Amino acid sequence: MIKITFPDGAVREYQEGVTGMEVAKSISEGLARKVLAVKINGEVWDATRPLTSDATINLLSWDDADGKSTFWHSSAHLLAEAVESIYPGVKFWVGPPIEKGFYYDMDLGGTSVSEDQLRDIEKKMIELSRQGNAYIRKEVPKAEAIQYFSEKGDEYKLDLLKGLNDGQITFYTQGNFTDLCRGPHIPNTGLIKAIKLTSVAGAYWKGDEKNKMLTRVYGVTFPNQKELDEYLQMLEEAKKRDHRKLGKELGIFTTNDDVGQGLIMWMPNGTVIIEELEKLAKETESAAGYKRVVTPHIAKENLYLTSGHLPYYADSMFPPMEMDGEKYYLKAMNCPHHHKIFDAEPKSYRDMPYRIAEYGTCYRYEQSGELFGLMRVRCLHMNDAHIYCTKEQFAEEFKAVNDMYIKYFKIFGIGKYVMRLSLHDPEKLGQKYVNEPALWLETEAMVRQVMIEAGVPFVEVKGEGAFYGPKIDVQIWSAIGREFTLATNQVDFAQPLRFNLSFTNKDNQAETPLIIHRAPLGTHERFIGFLLEHYAGKFPTWLAPLQVKILPISDKFADYGKEVLAMLLKAGIRAEMDDRNEKIGKKIRDTELMKVPYMFVIGEKEMNERMVAVRKQGAGDQGTKDISEIISNLKLEIEERH
Amino acid sequence: MIKITFPDGAVREYQEGVTGMEVAKSISEGLARKVLAVKINGEVWDATRPLTSDATINLLSWDDADGKSTFWHSSAHLLAEAVESIYPGVKFWVGPPIEKGFYYDMDLGGTSVSEDQLRDIEKKMIELSRQGNAYIRKEVPKAEAIQYFSEKGDEYKLDLLKGLNDGQITFYTQGNFTDLCRGPHIPNTGLIKAIKLTSVAGAYWKGDEKNKMLTRVYGVTFPNQKELDEYLQMLEEAKKRDHRKLGKELGIFTTNDDVGQGLIMWMPNGTVIIEELEKLAKETESAAGYKRVVTPHIAKENLYLTSGHLPYYADSMFPPMEMDGEKYYLKAMNCPHHHKIFDAEPKSYRDMPYRIAEYGTCYRYEQSGELFGLMRVRCLHMNDAHIYCTKEQFAEEFKAVNDMYIKYFKIFGIGKYVMRLSLHDPEKLGQKYVNEPALWLETEAMVRQVMIEAGVPFVEVKGEGAFYGPKIDVQIWSAIGREFTLATNQVDFAQPLRFNLSFTNKDNQAETPLIIHRAPLGTHERFIGFLLEHYAGKFPTWLAPLQVKILPISDKFADYGKEVLAMLLKAGIRAEMDDRNEKIGKKIRDTELMKVPYMFVIGEKEMNERMVAVRKQGAGDQGTKDISEIISNLKLEIEERH
Repeated sequence: MIKITFPDGAVREYQEGVTGMEVAKSISEGLARKVLAVKINGEVWDATRPLTSDATINLLSWDDADGKSTFWHSSAHLLAEAVESIYPGVKFWVGPPIEKGFYYDMDLGGTSVSEDQLRDIEKKMIELSRQGNAYIRKEVPKAEAIQYFSEKGDEYKLDLLKGLNDGQITFYTQGNFTDLCRGPHIPNTGLIKAIKLTSVAGAYWKGDEKNKMLTRVYGVTFPNQKELDEYLQMLEEAKKRDHRKLGKELGIFTTNDDVGQGLIMWMPNGTVIIEELEKLAKETESAAGYKRVVTPHIAKENLYLTSGHLPYYADSMFPPMEMDGEKYYLKAMNCPHHHKIFDAEPKSYRDMPYRIAEYGTCYRYEQSGELFGLMRVRCLHMNDAHIYCTKEQFAEEFKAVNDMYIKYFKIFGIGKYVMRLSLHDPEKLGQKYVNEPALWLETEAMVRQVMIEAGVPFVEVKGEGAFYGPKIDVQIWSAIGREFTLATNQVDFAQPLRFNLSFTNKDNQAETPLIIHRAPLGTHERFIGFLLEHYAGKFPTWLAPLQVKILPISDKFADYGKEVLAMLLKAGIRAEMDDRNEKIGKKIRDTELMKVPYMFVIGEKEMNERMVAVRKQGAGDQGTKDISEIISNLKLEIEERH
Repeated sequence: MIKITFPDGAVREYQEGVTGMEVAKSISEGLARKVLAVKINGEVWDATRPLTSDATINLLSWDDADGKSTFWHSSAHLLAEAVESIYPGVKFWVGPPIEKGFYYDMDLGGTSVSEDQLRDIEKKMIELSRQGNAYIRKEVPKAEAIQYFSEKGDEYKLDLLKGLNDGQITFYTQGNFTDLCRGPHIPNTGLIKAIKLTSVAGAYWKGDEKNKMLTRVYGVTFPNQKELDEYLQMLEEAKKRDHRKLGKELGIFTTNDDVGQGLIMWMPNGTVIIEELEKLAKETESAAGYKRVVTPHIAKENLYLTSGHLPYYADSMFPPMEMDGEKYYLKAMNCPHHHKIFDAEPKSYRDMPYRIAEYGTCYRYEQSGELFGLMRVRCLHMNDAHIYCTKEQFAEEFKAVNDMYIKYFKIFGIGKYVMRLSLHDPEKLGQKYVNEPALWLETEAMVRQVMIEAGVPFVEVKGEGAFYGPKIDVQIWSAIGREFTLATNQVDFAQPLRFNLSFTNKDNQAETPLIIHRAPLGTHERFIGFLLEHYAGKFPTWLAPLQVKILPISDKFADYGKEVLAMLLKAGIRAEMDDRNEKIGKKIRDTELMKVPYMFVIGEKEMNERMVAVRKQGAGDQGTKDISEIISNLKLEIEERH
């Protein structure tokens, strides 16, 4: 008998050789039907692989990231099986799962794949899925594997084999298809019920342009049709909401080759949004007792040697400027500058917590191929702040930051979010993590305690902490269900020591503070990119670059329009008048294209009665309103950030 | 007879050989007494030098920069005469006028000069001044000059002579002192009535540290004692108001060696001032129809090759960062980025004028020896904007910018200012100035017309225009009478062409706009440095980092103090409470040191009556006031920027 330990700590005994699936069935048949793979002692296994000694077990379903990943990996094999049956002689390179779906790189001997042919392959995959063939694992000696692929004439798999040691080699077979594969896989093809091959692209073998161009087929699969339909609909909607497309149409941002890739230039409309976000941040931070600072964008090499960012982080930084025998770097983070401000005047316990905030602009090097709209850029405006506090103050300060996140989520209508408590990995102390095992455990416990007491839903992830301490990573979902990593709330017990920061405590002794790094609104770039998709460009009134457009039906009403405009501007409302000599229908359509929240249409009746006919974005005609009344309503809507 | 033309265009005839002084006397004896030198055909001459042909004349007095400069140059000779009489055998190097006064470098053969000895030299100078000796010019052949200084054993003057051609050499003698000197000089030593030798320093011969160290004596002189006394008092006051000293004491800014010289880090108190200035600028600019943009701090080399800043301006820029085979530069100005934003969307006459503003941060290389507090820095936050307009719109736009300057001057209590209309120099077209002679004349005329119509006092200066067009340089004087160069308002007809900018005019043709570059508040660095001196750190309430300090007389009143504090904060007033266990006298003194505009002292009586005892910075006790009343007064004072 072997002992199997469940996630809740329960231990059960099973016969040696029992499989994960049998363990699941021993609990419930319903549960077993959902099992895609299992995690044995932290490693993902086939649910059908026999267990030979005591182990911990986690049953993995579609709801687990590892479950999805296994499902898509098996889907890649199903794709390969279908392709082989249609294109005999095809040779395969690799077929991994990706963030959403999977792909397989294949050598079709020069044949190209059309859209129609993609649909044929899909049909074949469905047919093979219905056969419900099991994925069967087989360990083979290296010599046997070499012989198998030599006979097949498959130079790609032979190349893969070169890198593997004897004893490491496994084959997986489903139906008539066998592949060299480390696994793991789902129990059988029948679980893959909904299939969509999304695109075909060329991909150089091993990513090297000197090599042969292979065919890469991308796909995505689901355990049921409903999820696939929803996903395709989301993609369709996401295309409409593409932040690059909306960003251009709405005059939010631009880039220019002479300035450089990944260097966003914020146009007037985007700058309004930036200023509204900064206003929100400043109000919120001021109420929470933060002070503001302004620091330069460069510093000498020595600052980053002290912080430890150099030489380790150099690849993510811009190259240095050499001047007067010194190297100057563009800052990739604001913390070292802020530490110097903390240190510029002596501090006592009366000054703590010392909270300093800055919308600091940082520069990070990203490969040009990685750059993407506002999501991956080289210049970032960061909603940054650093809180220097005593250990006793830590819990309250850390909780206050989490509360600030949640306050922001409410304002932006972000209903779905997850906080990931990212911890260190004890095996990587001194490499990926500062070698302070006791401090790691202590601060992790403090953070965990804060999260539990705050009642915030969170998950723990080992091995994703920052270099200098544990952190909370915040993931949010846009209105159409796409996931974004927003921001972090990090503890830092390492930098205060490196920078020799201290304050005089009540006993008149020098004491080292803790630091909290936080950026609830992330960067302007990523957050505004998110908001463009989230709102589909239809910003709430307080954020909208233009809040009201006045549309006179004809020239006759332009003077009254100007009067209304002046009243709006005086009330601090962003307004313009469309005084072009165009039909009112065209004026309305043009204003709708620019997604302006309010239109005030004015004609004879409105002028005579000193009213405006109000049309609201997404809600249509609101009837005729008294000017002062609508202005005071608008002011309230803007002030309360509805 | 020769014809002499006066500045007002009048022409008079004089005997050949007449001197400038005689010309002055022919107009009025009173006028002649003020003449220090004359400008003949644009060149400064001794007033006693005979005129041998037709010429234009300008009489130079103490009120002219060239008059002052000549006066101080002659004062340097007077210093030398005094030194020679006290230290026989002294040898002299050079003795030029400087911005405020003069110096003379001398070889005293190892003798040092004490403070007492400086006073002795001063006395001797006064004595020699009273002799009223004329400065006598004598042209000498080079051989004679060499013989004279060889006999004297003066290797310094012999060295100077090496660089001069025969026919160029003049001696100047006053009393017993003769010097090799190009001149010109004032008529006689008697005009130098008030003398102060300010300091002694070491200076390497020819500025080369391998050479001998000479003694440099600095001094300043005036035509009367009153002006000297005022100047010395201003220096004393300036020392107290030194922006570096106040900046540190008031927590305005700091620098750090690890960050780098000339890179200002704005502390929380300085950042409040920055944000208030930016708020003022944004309000003002928004009301004037500007839109805002945000651009990155770097760009590729090509942008600056297009603008023409590279290679000519490279010495003033930071060195490039080389990345992905491209050179990236920190921006030294915002214009090229703004031009790209103008160009990002097609423009029509309906979009003009297109005004975009940004508090852009620029980086400029200054020699480390030139760096000085906030006045000379390497990182500048600039109150920048660019106005793209048609020729027809130019005058109105340019005038609006000048009006904005004057509006700001009123807010900051800047009573004395001068606008300098800086023009091109036709001889330097194609070198220092874009080679567009017609456009220069046209735009200069436009600007002159605007200035005349606006009735703003201005002076014209040839050869100080920007590379790309004429400009207005604005000089302002602080409360203690020190002069600062603040900002510029520039016309640009060159960059629109270089960047190929255009808009579609009413005739549906592409037309090139004019650009106005303007920065009325200059840079945060220089302007806040100016304000620190101007206000002696006692900022008006709207700008003060901390506006109200609440001082409870004892712990008993702390709760009431907190209540008052909460009311102030709710009203948006920057307030703090001093809840230390200290005597009220000490609390008041500490608050005065931080130059907080208002103190609310609270004790038994105030608590019971829900009042506060108000002390105002510089005005003392204001009596006891009702809380709501004082809060609404304060809000008004802040809102109106009194």
